[in-house]
Amino acid sequence: MSQSLTTFPVAVSREELEEGSVFSPRFDANGLITCVTTEAISGELLMVAYMNAEALAKTLETGEAWYWSRSRKELWHKGDTSGQLQTVQEIRVDCDQDALWLKVSVAGDGGCCHTGRESCFYRLLESKDGSPQLTRDHV
Amino acid sequence: MSQSLTTFPVAVSREELEEGSVFSPRFDANGLITCVTTEAISGELLMVAYMNAEALAKTLETGEAWYWSRSRKELWHKGDTSGQLQTVQEIRVDCDQDALWLKVSVAGDGGCCHTGRESCFYRLLESKDGSPQLTRDHV
Repeated sequence: MSQSLTTFPVAVSREELEEGSVFSPRFDANGLITCVTTEAISGELLMVAYMNAEALAKTLETGEAWYWSRSRKELWHKGDTSGQLQTVQEIRVDCDQDALWLKVSVAGDGGCCHTGRESCFYRLLESKDGSPQLTRDHV
Repeated sequence: MSQSLTTFPVAVSREELEEGSVFSPRFDANGLITCVTTEAISGELLMVAYMNAEALAKTLETGEAWYWSRSRKELWHKGDTSGQLQTVQEIRVDCDQDALWLKVSVAGDGGCCHTGRESCFYRLLESKDGSPQLTRDHV
């Protein structure tokens, strides 16, 4: 994919944005788009991350998930260090094209979270004595 | 829930943030936290939205989903107009507590998207002649 493809089209109308066939991802003021990643077969929600135009272009080019790490402020080829590469099986975009949904299969040990869990969403919010409290249900 | 609960605790350490039982949601520079909403039984990804502290507090207080509308810049009781109220069945938080996952049941006609679809993710990104193109698979 050429460098020029890191520039994506801008939808010309709301109709085009919501009903059209032109992929016109809308990046926020920080140049990021929200990305929800689920496991392609189980449907499990693995993580929520962000892509800038370059990460999105690299994802489309390579078929593997690339994100923008907001904490490290750098392009992040998911799994490059851990071996937990994410092969993209499907990408969806929402109505106003400011969120992406990646369905992936995970290489390595199948994990996703840096804490070692399969999913980043290992804690449940419950009410205890009227106050919210977190419970772990994936060890 | 008292007004004071719109202020949430701040985690004292990374260990507490990632492994603790204190709910310490991390709002971004705009005061928002990303929220992924799925249908509680089918698991379908319905939408991605954002909450500020007040929307989150109201969600916890009422058991129905409240978001912050970034386009309208106002608190948004989902379904208030459409009847598509979302009753929260479960809330999860991710490892670094900057994303929430709501599992909901939807009232009214069961829809979620303002375009009339059940899910906002009704378009698939496919490659056509080497270029990304959107295909609708939910009419």
